[in-house]
Amino acid sequence: MTSTEIPIRIHDLEDSRIDAYRDVRERDLVGRKGFIAEGRVVIEPLLASRRFRPLSLLVLENRLAGLAPLLARVPAGVPTYLADRATFDGIAGFSVHRGLLAHGEALADPDEALRLPAIAAAGGTVVVAVGIANHDNIGAIFRNAAAFGADAVLIDETSCDPLYRKAIRVSAGSVFTVPYERVGAADDALARLLDAGFRCLALSPGAAAGLAPLDQPGPAALFLGAEGPGLPAELAARMSAIRIPMVPGFDSINVATAAAVALHRLYSRRPPAD
Amino acid sequence: MTSTEIPIRIHDLEDSRIDAYRDVRERDLVGRKGFIAEGRVVIEPLLASRRFRPLSLLVLENRLAGLAPLLARVPAGVPTYLADRATFDGIAGFSVHRGLLAHGEALADPDEALRLPAIAAAGGTVVVAVGIANHDNIGAIFRNAAAFGADAVLIDETSCDPLYRKAIRVSAGSVFTVPYERVGAADDALARLLDAGFRCLALSPGAAAGLAPLDQPGPAALFLGAEGPGLPAELAARMSAIRIPMVPGFDSINVATAAAVALHRLYSRRPPAD
Repeated sequence: MTSTEIPIRIHDLEDSRIDAYRDVRERDLVGRKGFIAEGRVVIEPLLASRRFRPLSLLVLENRLAGLAPLLARVPAGVPTYLADRATFDGIAGFSVHRGLLAHGEALADPDEALRLPAIAAAGGTVVVAVGIANHDNIGAIFRNAAAFGADAVLIDETSCDPLYRKAIRVSAGSVFTVPYERVGAADDALARLLDAGFRCLALSPGAAAGLAPLDQPGPAALFLGAEGPGLPAELAARMSAIRIPMVPGFDSINVATAAAVALHRLYSRRPPAD
Repeated sequence: MTSTEIPIRIHDLEDSRIDAYRDVRERDLVGRKGFIAEGRVVIEPLLASRRFRPLSLLVLENRLAGLAPLLARVPAGVPTYLADRATFDGIAGFSVHRGLLAHGEALADPDEALRLPAIAAAGGTVVVAVGIANHDNIGAIFRNAAAFGADAVLIDETSCDPLYRKAIRVSAGSVFTVPYERVGAADDALARLLDAGFRCLALSPGAAAGLAPLDQPGPAALFLGAEGPGLPAELAARMSAIRIPMVPGFDSINVATAAAVALHRLYSRRPPAD
């Protein structure tokens, strides 16, 4: 909020101005217009995002002073609502211990096509999520993609929504900073990536090759499948498969953790930046 | 259950034989004698464990046929109780969709000292959890320790219990297979590890060195601190600090994910076993 704006105190649980924050958990399930982001850790990246923007904030009154630096960066015209604990939790329908929610929306359409040839030309990295239906996993994939400098994430039609509240939280807000595109079938994503010049690699516990193929220079796309089923066999067969060496007989590690190991290796190709 | 034993059908919610399974979530919070393990994925390693054993199992009646191979490996004298959905969920106090619980106990005392000199002599790897108070994280650390062949985990007094139901689940049962010891202060663990000949490494986002020190041969102990605070500064100052290279300015990745990246690198020192 700019210095000329003041927070708007909400006294009435039925106040229509805070409808977006009503019954947060129920609406997580049925869907909503825009998304709800919870806590400073994810709202900082939201404020810095070029792809998303806040529509309003809801702040617990006793957090107001501590949040002043963050609230100072909220764009003009975006209202900050203020509520006491009983009102805040009554609106949200559960105890929001972080005391800070934002209602936001996409500026760009997340289905809008990424410019894959430009990423390829810069030797970049793309992560492709196939059948990742677990919100923790999609969030953690974004967090790891951000940590290791992936340029974009493609999300197939069988994966879940990265703007689900818990996915946003697990991503530490990286869903707002790492460009992504919701694509249709993973097959079509593969075709586009190959067209753009990406070397496409399937991360698969059953692959014969280890991670050495990640060390080759040039643009790389890393395909991730769900734990358990993994990538569809016919999809994986159309690219090079790699696996993370681990104790023989051990089932597998978490998919986002596996992504971190592989993305770390891809990131290690770069000259140190710091 | 051996072929001579038959499952015991439970009709009465108040049956004292299934007291261990009563109000599972409430007892997760207040503690219980032994632990509750949920689902086939974690009960398989429990049955294979040399450090833990099942005291009984509770099976949903319509899962009985599908679980026959698992139940055949339950030791003689360990009862299998059978319940219909209403009884099962009524006992547990929530809907146990996996339809399979085990009540178990430690055979060895988890506080019993690990033989660190023997692990050191074999050039082994130990993970040290310091202040890991999140059950998901402690479970994921075990899963990654198992995947990358760590020989043991030391858990300091400020970390949480790996036998909490959710930690067991996130570990995919690795808490039953990777030897661990609950130690007191992390300082004392460091002293014991140094005495035993381990090279002790603090994984810390603020360290100057990258991961190259992991490539040195010989026994290594990897110290992990909680996300946010990290390792206590005075503890980290007594060993070599290493960090995972990542995008400058990015806060940090999940502690168990960071452990996976480092343990993968330690595991890569070994000649391929498969």
